[in-house]
Amino acid sequence: MVENGQRVSIIPLGGLGEIGRNMMLIRYGAHILVIDCGLIFPEDEMFGVDVVIPDVSYLLENRHMVKGIIVTHGHEDHIGALPYVLKDLNVPVYGTKLTLALLQAKLKEYGVNGFRLQQVKPRDILKLGPFKVEFIRVSHSIADSVGLAIHTPVGTIVHTGDFKIDHTPIDGEVFDFYKFAQLGEEGVLVLLSDSTNVERPGFTMSERAVGQTFDEVFRKAKERIIVASFASNIHRIQQVISIAHKYNRKVAIAGRSMLNVVNIACELGYLTIPPGILVELDEIVHLPKNKTVIISTGSQGEPMSALTRMAMAEHRQVEIMPGDTVIISALPIPGNEKLVARIVDQLFKQGADVYHEAVDGVHVSGHASQEELKLMISLVKPKFFVPIHGEYRMLIKHANLAQELGIPPENIFVIENGQVLEFTRERGYIAGRVPAGRVLVDGLGVGDVGNIVLRDRKQLAQDGILIVVLTLNKDTGAIMAGPDIVSRGFVYVREAEELIEEAKAKVRQALDKCEERKITDWSTIKANVRDTLSKFLYEKTRRRPMILPIIMEV
Amino acid sequence: MVENGQRVSIIPLGGLGEIGRNMMLIRYGAHILVIDCGLIFPEDEMFGVDVVIPDVSYLLENRHMVKGIIVTHGHEDHIGALPYVLKDLNVPVYGTKLTLALLQAKLKEYGVNGFRLQQVKPRDILKLGPFKVEFIRVSHSIADSVGLAIHTPVGTIVHTGDFKIDHTPIDGEVFDFYKFAQLGEEGVLVLLSDSTNVERPGFTMSERAVGQTFDEVFRKAKERIIVASFASNIHRIQQVISIAHKYNRKVAIAGRSMLNVVNIACELGYLTIPPGILVELDEIVHLPKNKTVIISTGSQGEPMSALTRMAMAEHRQVEIMPGDTVIISALPIPGNEKLVARIVDQLFKQGADVYHEAVDGVHVSGHASQEELKLMISLVKPKFFVPIHGEYRMLIKHANLAQELGIPPENIFVIENGQVLEFTRERGYIAGRVPAGRVLVDGLGVGDVGNIVLRDRKQLAQDGILIVVLTLNKDTGAIMAGPDIVSRGFVYVREAEELIEEAKAKVRQALDKCEERKITDWSTIKANVRDTLSKFLYEKTRRRPMILPIIMEV
Repeated sequence: MVENGQRVSIIPLGGLGEIGRNMMLIRYGAHILVIDCGLIFPEDEMFGVDVVIPDVSYLLENRHMVKGIIVTHGHEDHIGALPYVLKDLNVPVYGTKLTLALLQAKLKEYGVNGFRLQQVKPRDILKLGPFKVEFIRVSHSIADSVGLAIHTPVGTIVHTGDFKIDHTPIDGEVFDFYKFAQLGEEGVLVLLSDSTNVERPGFTMSERAVGQTFDEVFRKAKERIIVASFASNIHRIQQVISIAHKYNRKVAIAGRSMLNVVNIACELGYLTIPPGILVELDEIVHLPKNKTVIISTGSQGEPMSALTRMAMAEHRQVEIMPGDTVIISALPIPGNEKLVARIVDQLFKQGADVYHEAVDGVHVSGHASQEELKLMISLVKPKFFVPIHGEYRMLIKHANLAQELGIPPENIFVIENGQVLEFTRERGYIAGRVPAGRVLVDGLGVGDVGNIVLRDRKQLAQDGILIVVLTLNKDTGAIMAGPDIVSRGFVYVREAEELIEEAKAKVRQALDKCEERKITDWSTIKANVRDTLSKFLYEKTRRRPMILPIIMEV
Repeated sequence: MVENGQRVSIIPLGGLGEIGRNMMLIRYGAHILVIDCGLIFPEDEMFGVDVVIPDVSYLLENRHMVKGIIVTHGHEDHIGALPYVLKDLNVPVYGTKLTLALLQAKLKEYGVNGFRLQQVKPRDILKLGPFKVEFIRVSHSIADSVGLAIHTPVGTIVHTGDFKIDHTPIDGEVFDFYKFAQLGEEGVLVLLSDSTNVERPGFTMSERAVGQTFDEVFRKAKERIIVASFASNIHRIQQVISIAHKYNRKVAIAGRSMLNVVNIACELGYLTIPPGILVELDEIVHLPKNKTVIISTGSQGEPMSALTRMAMAEHRQVEIMPGDTVIISALPIPGNEKLVARIVDQLFKQGADVYHEAVDGVHVSGHASQEELKLMISLVKPKFFVPIHGEYRMLIKHANLAQELGIPPENIFVIENGQVLEFTRERGYIAGRVPAGRVLVDGLGVGDVGNIVLRDRKQLAQDGILIVVLTLNKDTGAIMAGPDIVSRGFVYVREAEELIEEAKAKVRQALDKCEERKITDWSTIKANVRDTLSKFLYEKTRRRPMILPIIMEV
């Protein structure tokens, strides 16, 4: 607390220095507003971890202050942590119709009860304690996305959510230029803006451009067409259905998550489906191939997805045939490139003709490129600028962009998760830090997989484990049974019998030495066995398996 | 063997359906010529594996037929398996000066003795049994690269090696258009051509374009400049040195492999170094920052490389400072994208200004794009075409390209590693299959890590291991000690004492049941313990650790 007077803080709990796990707090006095609550997928070295969510201990400590959670759209990296967080923090969640419908399905799936969802629509104004929140239509790769203007006693904070600017969106719901411009005209204290695509020059293409590519591919396709996309990309699915209709093809859906989303979107009126065009997957395989389209999950090469099973010839209903056209209409999430490439290769091997993002332009991004980011800044004309949603280099580059547009460097803040950035009307400054680590979810365990478990898994993955068991007489210390050696993931034992026999001899030598030196302390004996074996095995194999001596007494 | 008459076969042992591990055999009668012998880095799920090399059992079985190994250039994916293969198959290796110098250094490092290296130069003709091999200059991202024309009694086979077409190469040694054109004019039976960049339209830029970008970056840099690149990219290193000279900066080298290659290249005259410009790393850190350049390893974000250590603030001599300019002059190899991104982020955090390939054009590829690939086919005018060096989809797309240029589809062969493709003067056909699996190298073990070991490592990585030990009386079967439970990589035990106690109780119950049913067979007892625990732990945690019951008798 550097000075008197009114202050508002922003506190990111996720999404800064990373793509995903977005979560931002706005705090004014004893009032906290939460924006988004997403997950991120684990990094390669987080062995066995299912998802990673934000650490919300700061919120739990201050639960009486929390006015509610606002979700900007229905992607996993914005709503995915809610099933975990709402269990501990039952506060109302506010969002648009589709966003809440997707969230609700997710909460049911996780068995969360008693949640309170409250629907809003763009241009609605919501009063939550001292905050007045306006919802503003933006374009993104999922329908019903909004940015936010949060009016606080100190000034207005604009949070873009994830956005792009699409002048010709599929649903006709154009980015709300007026609202952003009006806020800019009235005066905005802070702009928090999406940095995901800051490394791309120019403008991101309109979703409609994908439709044009689809149209060409559909026109040329002689047999069946299979399109894989994110289930949540409803506009993409709408385009596939519309173009299938144009070319007189029936459409079936493959993959559970795709079915769920299509059902929800249909019910809520987000998809316009010509009567009779949708058929069951079981049916479509009996229709003439050139009259059919299958919309499928698996655009990320996920091992259990419908498309992967088709590519591996393991799908129960759909077998890829020469003549099939497959469109993978998504960008691989960083880290998934090789998975997707493998699926493309497999599809080619099955004889399909494959169009994929990297080379064929069958996808456009949902995030703003440099020119759109500049436009956002020019519309909103903020006093302070904080780049959000991006890896560190992206935040830096977005900060540079803002500086080019004339925002003074001292008014631009590149901060990290957990840093408390406080603003008065005049200035901004780092005012502290709250816990904002990564909470790892593995199965039912939330946060119980820590560094030690991960370090062990890493060593086990690398060179396996070798277990030495022996039973000692508790009075004399004499060996009653063993040493036995069991290994897993180290060497294929049948081919390494000699090595294991030598290892046993080494263990006996180590034990003899301990006896000579009258060492009776178990942990010292174990350490001796471990060191002797470790040295021996490294010399023989240049590998370092985990070595686990277990001693029993009878 | 479909018909009489003369036949020549090509037999790929690696490099088809993958990027790396290139190895191709040409067989005529009882004579085999080997082209390249490379390695590939392991896939993510090959836990603990260091490198993957071709299976050469077919060669070992037919060792008396092998006339020699020809290496087209000095990259790991072309020479990297030789230290392993030459131990079992001591035949002469032929290559250009730099290629052999790099190979020699590698063989010494691996302690391989008694090898026979024989130097050739472009336009040399080598007679090896019935084969006459011509070496043809091509452009690539390492100096001294060649393609091959192998004249056989059946006809001429042209093997491009890895290539691009650089009209303005740094060393002035231009791609040998005449030789390829002359071969085409005289008549070529088969063209084997590099498919790596077939997904890129247009032409690959000249290496000189990177120099222009470097020049701009150097001109603007106010403090120290650090350039990371592949050690083997000698032309890139030459450009850094020349431009450093132009801007009056001294140059130091960081990283062992970079030092090795620069030394070899200097000795052999492949690098032109202005006198006095090279200084030791220890010295350069004491010079004015704006007078210095460091050339470093680590362009792939390799964890132990010089650049990574600098980025992590763990390098002994070089500390990244605000004002430093870092250029990462390489494309991330597929799978390394996240590693490289992490280094870039770290460098930005240390305050450096970072230029990296993805966005800043500080790298050009060493492989031919579509227009160059077409040019190769047009020059060589082969009767038969076989795309090589590429993942499956790339081979297919290269085949499509060849078809567009008028090669009849029946004369184009997309084959897999291990397939024997036989040619007469008139036709080509698949004539069989030889072993061509992946040989995994882990430490000193070559091929001893198989599916079982990998499957175990995968399970261990995912959910860890839980070991149950107990000692039984060998006469009565009574429990003398235990059950004890030790786990690693499963849960953090101190926080899961209750779970482990419950698990022990489950084990005792399972043992009691076995006793009731008079089961005395150890493997059945173990299976019962494993099943009981597995079910219990999955219910409690939704995890499936490896469960390893160990029973001792006293």
